[in-house]
Amino acid sequence: MTIQTLEWTNNKLKLIDQTELPNHLVYVECDTIEDVWDAIKKLKVRGAPAIGVAGAYGAYLGVANKDYLDQEAFLDDLQGLVEYLKACRPTAVNLQWALDRVWKLAKANCEQDIPIIKEKILNEAHLIHREDEQLCHRIGEYGQELLKDGDVVLTHCNAGALATGGRGTALAVIYHAQDHGKTLKVYADETRPLLQGARLTTWELMKHGVDVTLICDNMSGHVMRDKGVSCIIVGADRITAHGDVANKIGTYNLAVLAKEHGIPFYVAAPFSTFDLQLKSGKDIPIEERHPEEVEEGFGKRTAPQGVKVYNPAFDVTPAELVTAIITDQGILRAPYERSIEECLANLHEPNRI
Amino acid sequence: MTIQTLEWTNNKLKLIDQTELPNHLVYVECDTIEDVWDAIKKLKVRGAPAIGVAGAYGAYLGVANKDYLDQEAFLDDLQGLVEYLKACRPTAVNLQWALDRVWKLAKANCEQDIPIIKEKILNEAHLIHREDEQLCHRIGEYGQELLKDGDVVLTHCNAGALATGGRGTALAVIYHAQDHGKTLKVYADETRPLLQGARLTTWELMKHGVDVTLICDNMSGHVMRDKGVSCIIVGADRITAHGDVANKIGTYNLAVLAKEHGIPFYVAAPFSTFDLQLKSGKDIPIEERHPEEVEEGFGKRTAPQGVKVYNPAFDVTPAELVTAIITDQGILRAPYERSIEECLANLHEPNRI
Repeated sequence: MTIQTLEWTNNKLKLIDQTELPNHLVYVECDTIEDVWDAIKKLKVRGAPAIGVAGAYGAYLGVANKDYLDQEAFLDDLQGLVEYLKACRPTAVNLQWALDRVWKLAKANCEQDIPIIKEKILNEAHLIHREDEQLCHRIGEYGQELLKDGDVVLTHCNAGALATGGRGTALAVIYHAQDHGKTLKVYADETRPLLQGARLTTWELMKHGVDVTLICDNMSGHVMRDKGVSCIIVGADRITAHGDVANKIGTYNLAVLAKEHGIPFYVAAPFSTFDLQLKSGKDIPIEERHPEEVEEGFGKRTAPQGVKVYNPAFDVTPAELVTAIITDQGILRAPYERSIEECLANLHEPNRI
Repeated sequence: MTIQTLEWTNNKLKLIDQTELPNHLVYVECDTIEDVWDAIKKLKVRGAPAIGVAGAYGAYLGVANKDYLDQEAFLDDLQGLVEYLKACRPTAVNLQWALDRVWKLAKANCEQDIPIIKEKILNEAHLIHREDEQLCHRIGEYGQELLKDGDVVLTHCNAGALATGGRGTALAVIYHAQDHGKTLKVYADETRPLLQGARLTTWELMKHGVDVTLICDNMSGHVMRDKGVSCIIVGADRITAHGDVANKIGTYNLAVLAKEHGIPFYVAAPFSTFDLQLKSGKDIPIEERHPEEVEEGFGKRTAPQGVKVYNPAFDVTPAELVTAIITDQGILRAPYERSIEECLANLHEPNRI
């Protein structure tokens, strides 16, 4: 089976409500831009690529059923709607990027009839969605070559179908290896504090018939040593020009432990995850989130009132600990400055498939 | 203030029910050996030294109110009860050790009247309790020399007053450093799955006026790199003759990360934690606990039904990663075989204080 995190159906955006997983598979139908805003804000849809796609459909829903006096009024309205959606999760680069694409397309077509501009926006949303699917496919195909039958993979957080318009990044590698007849065993870190590994990764791997075992984050070293882990595969939120990788908190621990055990540490992400303006991982701002995520995990208080809490959402893994970065443009290895340059000189055109 | 984890009062063993912390300070009174077994099994009392003390009182409660035909019947029964308690938690050596002490004492006195043997057992339990208090004191005094004013200490699980008959092992070092006028900053790993760090360590450090910050286990590497951690101090459940350390799951991760960051990794434990029969950490039995601890840790199910879970309660840190072992006999350094031998030749007599 393939999990369809987002689907455009009957002129609505249908989403899996990820806050209900793994206990209930519930869909939300978004009729309006406000519905989409709410779904992104409340993490019903999450994962940088997935919220980019949702945002583009949201912009279309914002204008779809309104009448406008003229193109100028239309563009005025659209600009406001795009800003409204962007502000929903200001750090997710894909959301900004997808909405910018919609906005530029509308502006470039501002001489056309309004119904035609609307149609173009919807088609652009479809295109962003299909492109993301294709990026995941390429990442999966390139990455699966790194795995062999019988391998044991350890992963962290959720970089799967639930986070993207396709089959994921890190998890796409696993799905494609399986498509190629390789049988794998996967350990999934639960990923405190929000338990994306426990709630989402195990759920989607089980749906795909992958042999997955859930562990707590602090068991990873023990598992690497005693359970024959072949490699680590994680996603990424941002990668610098030097190859330093920002990803879900806990990724850095895994990278250090992988080095200690001589286990390859792979990062799977679209090539667009590179932020080439940034040289060093030290320049990546680390979002700190609310203490309650740590203190009251899931509705029950498990720390003393008034305790100090430090809750960074991400950490940075230096390039030196990254064996390879699996992108839609191929597998990059250190030195990353050079391999990024080579990619840029020979870009596939996934944006127009 | 001093926290009294265990107290013998009115011919009962009174315990802080640690499963209710930090929300409620509740005491359990154990009248019977079954009560004690249940309290150990359900982690109402926990921490290797504390369950050793509880086990000794439990053995007494098992025989206290029974009538026996003769000494042989008494010893037969006691032997069974000792085995029953030992099986309750297999990894921690202290429980085995305390019960062996009770058993040997009874055997050595098997010619005496049964009421006298019973009384000797109770006195032995008291002695184990008082000795433990004294051991904690010595560990704290020796260990505090390793800390200086302004140090930042990272700890894992709870090796404090709640885990012992005294002020703890790892945390005793912190308390004694504070007594000596050193101001410290402590980071406490929450310690999944049972959150002893979040629930217990932060609670008791706050009660003692220590500046403590709670983090998730997977943040430890990020904190070591970015927050100026001076050293790691953890407890131990069993240490081999070679110096391999079994302790709460996640300890091994910290030791590897400490090495990567050039941070000293200290283990604080009574000298009796050494299991000199064991050469290698590979020989230490690792208790696996119920999946529900991982799946429903917060009172709410957070993993799919039917997911596979691996839930080892302990891991083994090889001696090579241990900078020093802080014991009641002094600070031991590698090679541990030799430093253990030196200790054995010059034993203080904490056993008869």
